[in-house]
Amino acid sequence: MYNKNMKRHYEELGFAKIDHHRIKRKGFPEVIYCPGKTNKQIVEIAKKINKKKHPVLMTRASVEVFKAVKKVLKKAKYYEEARIITVARGSRVKGQEKVTIVTAGTADIPVAEEAAVTAEFLGIKVERLFDVGVAGIHRLTKNLHKLEKAKVIIVVAGMEGALPSVVGGLVSAPIIAVPTSVGYGANFKGLSALLTMMNSCAPGVAVVNIDNGFGAAVMAYSILKS
Amino acid sequence: MYNKNMKRHYEELGFAKIDHHRIKRKGFPEVIYCPGKTNKQIVEIAKKINKKKHPVLMTRASVEVFKAVKKVLKKAKYYEEARIITVARGSRVKGQEKVTIVTAGTADIPVAEEAAVTAEFLGIKVERLFDVGVAGIHRLTKNLHKLEKAKVIIVVAGMEGALPSVVGGLVSAPIIAVPTSVGYGANFKGLSALLTMMNSCAPGVAVVNIDNGFGAAVMAYSILKS
Amino acid sequence: MYNKNMKRHYEELGFAKIDHHRIKRKGFPEVIYCPGKTNKQIVEIAKKINKKKHPVLMTRASVEVFKAVKKVLKKAKYYEEARIITVARGSRVKGQEKVTIVTAGTADIPVAEEAAVTAEFLGIKVERLFDVGVAGIHRLTKNLHKLEKAKVIIVVAGMEGALPSVVGGLVSAPIIAVPTSVGYGANFKGLSALLTMMNSCAPGVAVVNIDNGFGAAVMAYSILKS
Amino acid sequence: MYNKNMKRHYEELGFAKIDHHRIKRKGFPEVIYCPGKTNKQIVEIAKKINKKKHPVLMTRASVEVFKAVKKVLKKAKYYEEARIITVARGSRVKGQEKVTIVTAGTADIPVAEEAAVTAEFLGIKVERLFDVGVAGIHRLTKNLHKLEKAKVIIVVAGMEGALPSVVGGLVSAPIIAVPTSVGYGANFKGLSALLTMMNSCAPGVAVVNIDNGFGAAVMAYSILKS
Amino acid sequence: MYNKNMKRHYEELGFAKIDHHRIKRKGFPEVIYCPGKTNKQIVEIAKKINKKKHPVLMTRASVEVFKAVKKVLKKAKYYEEARIITVARGSRVKGQEKVTIVTAGTADIPVAEEAAVTAEFLGIKVERLFDVGVAGIHRLTKNLHKLEKAKVIIVVAGMEGALPSVVGGLVSAPIIAVPTSVGYGANFKGLSALLTMMNSCAPGVAVVNIDNGFGAAVMAYSILKS
Amino acid sequence: MYNKNMKRHYEELGFAKIDHHRIKRKGFPEVIYCPGKTNKQIVEIAKKINKKKHPVLMTRASVEVFKAVKKVLKKAKYYEEARIITVARGSRVKGQEKVTIVTAGTADIPVAEEAAVTAEFLGIKVERLFDVGVAGIHRLTKNLHKLEKAKVIIVVAGMEGALPSVVGGLVSAPIIAVPTSVGYGANFKGLSALLTMMNSCAPGVAVVNIDNGFGAAVMAYSILKS
Amino acid sequence: MYNKNMKRHYEELGFAKIDHHRIKRKGFPEVIYCPGKTNKQIVEIAKKINKKKHPVLMTRASVEVFKAVKKVLKKAKYYEEARIITVARGSRVKGQEKVTIVTAGTADIPVAEEAAVTAEFLGIKVERLFDVGVAGIHRLTKNLHKLEKAKVIIVVAGMEGALPSVVGGLVSAPIIAVPTSVGYGANFKGLSALLTMMNSCAPGVAVVNIDNGFGAAVMAYSILKS
Amino acid sequence: MYNKNMKRHYEELGFAKIDHHRIKRKGFPEVIYCPGKTNKQIVEIAKKINKKKHPVLMTRASVEVFKAVKKVLKKAKYYEEARIITVARGSRVKGQEKVTIVTAGTADIPVAEEAAVTAEFLGIKVERLFDVGVAGIHRLTKNLHKLEKAKVIIVVAGMEGALPSVVGGLVSAPIIAVPTSVGYGANFKGLSALLTMMNSCAPGVAVVNIDNGFGAAVMAYSILKS
Repeated sequence: MYNKNMKRHYEELGFAKIDHHRIKRKGFPEVIYCPGKTNKQIVEIAKKINKKKHPVLMTRASVEVFKAVKKVLKKAKYYEEARIITVARGSRVKGQEKVTIVTAGTADIPVAEEAAVTAEFLGIKVERLFDVGVAGIHRLTKNLHKLEKAKVIIVVAGMEGALPSVVGGLVSAPIIAVPTSVGYGANFKGLSALLTMMNSCAPGVAVVNIDNGFGAAVMAYSILKS
Repeated sequence: MYNKNMKRHYEELGFAKIDHHRIKRKGFPEVIYCPGKTNKQIVEIAKKINKKKHPVLMTRASVEVFKAVKKVLKKAKYYEEARIITVARGSRVKGQEKVTIVTAGTADIPVAEEAAVTAEFLGIKVERLFDVGVAGIHRLTKNLHKLEKAKVIIVVAGMEGALPSVVGGLVSAPIIAVPTSVGYGANFKGLSALLTMMNSCAPGVAVVNIDNGFGAAVMAYSILKS
Repeated sequence: MYNKNMKRHYEELGFAKIDHHRIKRKGFPEVIYCPGKTNKQIVEIAKKINKKKHPVLMTRASVEVFKAVKKVLKKAKYYEEARIITVARGSRVKGQEKVTIVTAGTADIPVAEEAAVTAEFLGIKVERLFDVGVAGIHRLTKNLHKLEKAKVIIVVAGMEGALPSVVGGLVSAPIIAVPTSVGYGANFKGLSALLTMMNSCAPGVAVVNIDNGFGAAVMAYSILKS
Repeated sequence: MYNKNMKRHYEELGFAKIDHHRIKRKGFPEVIYCPGKTNKQIVEIAKKINKKKHPVLMTRASVEVFKAVKKVLKKAKYYEEARIITVARGSRVKGQEKVTIVTAGTADIPVAEEAAVTAEFLGIKVERLFDVGVAGIHRLTKNLHKLEKAKVIIVVAGMEGALPSVVGGLVSAPIIAVPTSVGYGANFKGLSALLTMMNSCAPGVAVVNIDNGFGAAVMAYSILKS
Repeated sequence: MYNKNMKRHYEELGFAKIDHHRIKRKGFPEVIYCPGKTNKQIVEIAKKINKKKHPVLMTRASVEVFKAVKKVLKKAKYYEEARIITVARGSRVKGQEKVTIVTAGTADIPVAEEAAVTAEFLGIKVERLFDVGVAGIHRLTKNLHKLEKAKVIIVVAGMEGALPSVVGGLVSAPIIAVPTSVGYGANFKGLSALLTMMNSCAPGVAVVNIDNGFGAAVMAYSILKS
Repeated sequence: MYNKNMKRHYEELGFAKIDHHRIKRKGFPEVIYCPGKTNKQIVEIAKKINKKKHPVLMTRASVEVFKAVKKVLKKAKYYEEARIITVARGSRVKGQEKVTIVTAGTADIPVAEEAAVTAEFLGIKVERLFDVGVAGIHRLTKNLHKLEKAKVIIVVAGMEGALPSVVGGLVSAPIIAVPTSVGYGANFKGLSALLTMMNSCAPGVAVVNIDNGFGAAVMAYSILKS
Repeated sequence: MYNKNMKRHYEELGFAKIDHHRIKRKGFPEVIYCPGKTNKQIVEIAKKINKKKHPVLMTRASVEVFKAVKKVLKKAKYYEEARIITVARGSRVKGQEKVTIVTAGTADIPVAEEAAVTAEFLGIKVERLFDVGVAGIHRLTKNLHKLEKAKVIIVVAGMEGALPSVVGGLVSAPIIAVPTSVGYGANFKGLSALLTMMNSCAPGVAVVNIDNGFGAAVMAYSILKS
Repeated sequence: MYNKNMKRHYEELGFAKIDHHRIKRKGFPEVIYCPGKTNKQIVEIAKKINKKKHPVLMTRASVEVFKAVKKVLKKAKYYEEARIITVARGSRVKGQEKVTIVTAGTADIPVAEEAAVTAEFLGIKVERLFDVGVAGIHRLTKNLHKLEKAKVIIVVAGMEGALPSVVGGLVSAPIIAVPTSVGYGANFKGLSALLTMMNSCAPGVAVVNIDNGFGAAVMAYSILKS
C-alpha cells in the first residue's frame, strides 16, 4: 500500500490471500481464525505460512481440525483448553513476568487460556491468577502485589463482569477487559458483562470482544512492544 | 376480593379509584406516582387520602406539583432532591438504624434520597453512605461496619453498577440493588447497570427498576415488617 | 480483606480459589455453579469443601456430573427436577413454614424446585404452591391464606410474568420474583417476564435473574436471617 | 384495484392522495394522522374530506393544529385529553353499551380517551372503567359484571402491562390490549408492556401498537361490524 | 372468584391445578401447552380433562408426546403439521365459512395449521388461502372475494410480515396478524415481522405472539362468539 | 492512494481535510453533512469547495446554517423541506425521467425531498409519486405505469415500511428502500421499517439508513452512471 | 393485477401458488427458498416450474433436498458451497465481466458463492475477489483495477463489516453490501456488520439482509437490466 | 485497603468521599465527572482537591459550571470544544510526540479534544490528525508516517466506525478505539460504531465507551506509564 514492493505482500490461494507482509507491519504473522473455514482450507493456509518459516497460530480450533493439521505439519501442538494449535514455535518464554491474566471464575479459564497461549506464542511471560471474582474479593486483594507488578493486566470475567472495574480502582497498569459468555438469562451471552466493562467507572480500562482472549493478548503485545 | 366488605374498598373519582384498603393489605396507604397525572388529579387524590387521616406520599413530583398541593394541603412538605411530597407524616424516626442506603457516586444521590425519604415516611431509620463506588473501594471497606450492622442494604449505582456485587460478597444482609440512569453511551439509560445487577455473581441480591428508589424502600419495609 | 487472618480465607487449587471463609461472611459455604466447569474440577472442589465438613451444594448439575461426584462422595444426592446435587446435608427441615414458592404454570416447576431444594438445604421450611397463574386467578385467590402467612414469597413465572404483580397487590410479605425462560416468540428467552417484573406496579417486589431459583432462595435466606 | 372505476378512488393533492373510496372498503373515511404533516397540509386534507360530506377525524392533534383547523372548518371540535379533532360528526351515540374501555391507571387515560372518542366517532357506545390495575385487583373484580356484558373489551395499561392477561382469564369477550408508554426505566417507553401483552398466557387477547388508542377502537369497530 | 362455588373450580394434581371452570368462563376447556411438561404430566392432565367429558386440545406436541397420550387415550388424534393432539372432539364442522386463514408463504403453513386445527376444534369453519404474499400480490387480489366474505381473517406471515397491512387496506373484517419466525438474518426469529404488524398503517389489525397460531384461533373464536 | 499525485488530493483545514479528488473517483464533489459541525466550519468548507468551481451540497442544514452560508456565498439556495443548501448548481435538469421517488405517506415527504433535491443536484430527472402506501393500494396500482418506466425507484416509507416489498413484487427496476422515522411506539424511530425492508420477500430491493434520502439519491446516481 | 389475464398468473398447489407470471414482471422465474418447506413440497414446485420450461433455482438447499430433487429432475445440479440447486440452466456465461463479488475473509465465501451462482444463473458474468478485508488492505488496493472496471460490486463481509465503506470510498460503481453472520460475541449473528453497512459514511452503498447472497445477486441483476 | 493508613485515604463531604489517595494508586488525582452533580457540589469538590495542591480536571462541564468554578478558583481554564475545566495545571507539554489522536470526521472533534486535553493534562504530548475517515482513505495513508511513529493511537469515529480496523491493519501501535454518537438512524447513538469496533478483524484494538474521550486518554496514559 505504501511502498513499491506491495505486489509481493500476499500469496494468492483463491479462497484466501495470505498476508505474509503482516509480520512486518504488526510484528507477528497472519493468524488463522478457524470457524467457517474447511479443514482443507485451514491446512492449506497453515502450510503456506509454515513454508515461509513463520510460526503458525490457529485459534478456535476443534480436535478435528487439529487432527487434519497434524497429518501434514508434524510439529503442530494442540492446547485443548485454549482451543489453539501452534506450529514451529519456540519453547515457552522464561524470564520476567509481563502480563498478568486474571479470571473472575473457573468457567472463564478457557478464554483466559486463549489469551495466555497467544501471549506466550508472541513471546510474552504470563502470570495466571484465576478465580478471584468479587463474590470473595479477599482472593483478589491478597494477590494485589501480583497486579501491582504487572505491566499489563488482562481481566477475564463473565456474569456481571464487575472485576475489571474493581482491579482498575486498585492499580495503575493498563487493563484489557474481556467479557465472557459465561452466565445465563439476562447475561444475554456476554452482553451484560460487555456493557458493564464499557461503562467502567474506573478509568484505564479498555474492552475487546466477548470471549476474545486472542484479541486481548495481541493488544497486550502491542502495548508491550510500543 | 376475598371478603364481603369488598365494595367499601375503594373510592371512585372517575379518573381514579383510590384503594383505601391498601393500608390494611400492605401496611401503608396508596401512594401517588405523579407523572402522567394532571395537577388537578393529583390534588384531588391527595385530598381524599388525607381526609381518611392516612398519610400521603407523592413521588416524582415537580416543584409545580408541590405548589398546587401546598395551596390545598398546608402541611405538605417537599423534599426537592428526592422529588417527594409528603403530607401529615410524623417527625423523623429516631432510634436504631435499620436500613443502610449506599450510593456508588454523588450523581446517584437523588435516587438514594427517594429511597431514604420513602423509608423514613414508612417509619424506618435510615443510614446514608454515599459515594463509595469501586473506583476507590477503600471508601467502602472503611465503612464495612456500617454494612455489617444493617438489617437491609439498599445499593444505588449507575454506570457499570458493580457495587451491589461487591457489597454482596462482603456481608450477609439482603441487598436491594437499584440501577440508576447515571452514565452515558453504552449505559443506555441504566440498562447496563440493570443487567449487571441481574447477573450478580454474589447471591443475596435482588433488583428493582431503574431509578426506582421508592420501590427499593418499600421492599425494605416489606422485609423489615415480615 | 478486613482482618489480619485474610490469608487463610481461601484454598488454592490453581483453577479455583475456594472461599472457605464465605460461611462466616454469608452464613453458608461456597456453592458450585457447574456449567463451564469440567467434571474433574467440580469433583475436586466438592471434595475440598466436604473435607472442611461444610455441606456442599452443586447447581445446574447434569446426571453426568452427578455420576462423577457420586463415585467420590458417596453421600451425594441428586434432585433431578432441580438439577441440584447436595452432599452431607441434614434431613429436611420440619416445623413452621417460612417461604412459600409459587409458580404460574407447570413448566416453571424446575426453576421453583431449584429454589425449594436450595432453601431446604439452607434450613428453611418451604411450602409449594404450583400452577396458579393469572389465566385462572381463582386458583390463586383460593390459596390466599397460604400467601398471607408466608414470611417471604418467591413467585416463579414465565410467559408474560404477570403473577408477581398480582400477588404483590394482595399481600404484604416481600416478594422475590423469578422470571423464567418458559414461553416462545416475543418472550425472548425470559426477557419479557423479566421486564414485566422490573416494572411491577405493585411495590414490595424485587427481581433476580431469569431461571435463577438458586438466587431467589439465597435472597429469601438473607431476609429470614437478617 | 378490483373494479373498473378505480381511477375515481382518490383525490390528488400532490403531497397527499386522499382515499375517498376507503369509506366503502372499510366503513369509515380516511383518518388524518397529524404528526409530520404541516398545519397547511392537515387543513387542506380535512377540507377535501369534509367537502365530500364525509366526517373527519384527526388524531394526535395539538392545540395549534386545532386552531388552524377551526379557522376554516367551524364545526371542528377538540377533545384535548384524546388529542383528537372531529368535524361534522353527529351527536354521541345512545343506546346499548358495546365496548368497555379499561385502564390500569390514571396516567393511561389519554390513550383510553383516544380509543373512546374514536369509537364514539364510529358510532359505538363506550363504557369507561378507569384505574383498575392489579395493584388493587378488587377494583377490577368489583366491576366484573361490566366486563361480562361487554361485546369487546379494550384494555389500556402501561408499566408492567399485566391487566389484559388478568381480564383475559376472567371473561370471554375478545380483548384488544393497548400497551402505553407510561412508566420509566426498564419500561423502555412501552416495550415492557408490549412484550407482556404479546406473551399473555390468557388466550383471546390481541395487541396493537404502543399508545395506539385509535387502532384499538378501529379493531373494535371491525369486530362489531363483522 | 366471583361466586360461592369457587372451591370446586379446579382440580389439584400437585404439579398442576386444572381449571375445569374455564369452559364456563371462556367457552372452551383448559388447553395443554406441552413444552416444559413431562410426558407423564401431559398424560395425567389430559386424562383428568377427558374424564370430565371435556374435549382435550394439546398444542406444540411432538410425535413422542402423541405416542404417550395415545397409549392411554385411544381416541387421541395427531395433526402433525399443526403439532396438535385432540381427544374426543366431534367431526369437522360443516356449513358456512367463518374464518379465512391466509399465509404469505408455504413455510408459514405449520403456524396456519395450528390456527386452523384449533379453530375447527372450537367449532369454526375454516377457509385456507395459502401462499399469497406480496412478492406476487395478484395471488391475493384474485382471491379478494374470499377475504370479503370472511367474518374474521387470520393472516400468517414471516420475513418482512407486510401481508396483514395489505389485507387491512383492502377489506373491513377484523384481522388477526400472526408473525412467524420464518426468515433469517435481520428477521431475528420473527421480531421483524412482529414489529411490522404492530406498526401497520392499515387500521383494523391486532397482533398475537410470534408463531402463535393457537392464540389467533382463540381470538377469532372470541370475536365470533361475542 | 493509487497514483503518484496523491499528495494533492485533499486540502488541509485543520478541522477538516477536504477531499477535492472525490469528484474524480465518485463523479461528484465532497458533500457537507452539517450536524456536529459549527457554522464557521461549514462556511469554511463550502467556500473552499466553491473556490475549486465545484458545486456544493450541504445536507441536514437548518435555516441558521443557511443564513450563515448565504452571507458569504450569495448564490446559496435553500430547500427547506429537504433541509438542503446548494451553491452554484445549474438549473433543474429537463428531459427524460430517470428516477421515480415514491412515498408511503405525506409525513415521509421531507426524506423524499432530500433524495429528490440531491438527485437533481446530481443531474438526474426525478418523478415524485407521494402518498401511495398500502392502506389504499389502488393509489399505487393506478400509477403502475410510472413505476414501470422508471430506471431506478426510491421508495420512502415509515411505520411498518411495507411499501418497498409491494413495489418489488410488481416491477423489475432496482428499488432503493429508505426507512423513515415516521411512526411511534414499536416503530422505535425507524427500526421497524428498517427491519421490514431488510427482510423483504421481494428480491431486487436494497436498503439505506433510516431517513437517508441523500444516500438513496447517490445510490441511484451510481446505478445510472455505471 | 394490472391486466385482464391475471387469472392465469399462478398455478395452485394448495400449499403453494406458483407465480409463473413473475418471469414477465421481474425477468426471472419464481425461486424456491427451501427452509421450512418439506422435500415433497420443494420437488413438487420444482417440477411445475420445470414443466413450464422455466429454469429452476433453489436456495439454501441441503444435500438431502438435492437428493430428493435429483431423483425426479435428472438435470439438477448442486453447488455445495453456495447451497444452491439449479435445473435446466444454460452453460456458464462467457464474455465481459459485469459483477465483481468481493469478500472480506475466507469464511464469507459461502455467502459470496450464493451470490455468484445466482448471478451466473441470471446470465451475468462474475469476477470473484476473495479475502481482501481491511486487516491487510493492500490486498484490496492491489486489485483496485478489478473494482474500477466493474459495473456493480457486491461486497460480502462479516465481523465488523468495514469493507463496503472502504470500497465505497475508492470507486464509483454501485455497491451492494451483504453483511454475514461470520464472527462471534458482540457480532450478534451479523447485526454488527449490518449496522456498520447501514451507517456507511461512503455514499453509493445499499444493504441487503444478513447472509443474503441471493438477494444481492438479484439486486445486481435489476441494476444491470434497468 | 492494603495498608494501615487507609483511614486517611479519603475526605468526607457527605455527598462525596474524595479519594485523595488515587494519585498514588493511579498516578493522577480524582477527576470530577460533572453531569448529575449540582454546581455547588462540583465547586466544593474542586476546592478540596485544589487545596491538596493536586491539579483538578472536570469533564463534561457546561459554560455554567465553568462560571461557577471560576468565581472561586481563579486559575480555572475552560476548553469549550472539549467541555473540560482544568485548574492549576502546568503549561502544555513540549518535546516528543507520544499519542496520535485521529478522527474520522469533523463532527468527531469534540470527543477527540476531550481526549487531547485530558492527555495533555496528564503530561502527554499529543498529535492531532483529524478528518481522515474511510470515505477518502488517501487522507489517512498520506499521514501513515504519523501513525507509524506514535506510541499509542486513539481513533475516534462515529457513523459506521470503520476507521480503527483500517488503522489496525496498517500499524503495530496499540489502538484505543472511541466510538462516537455522531450519526443518525441505525447508528442508534453510537451503538453501531461501538459494535463495529468490538468486532474489529484487525487485532491490537481495544474499545472504550461511546464519546468517552477522557477514558481513552487515561488508557493511553496507563500504557505509556506502564
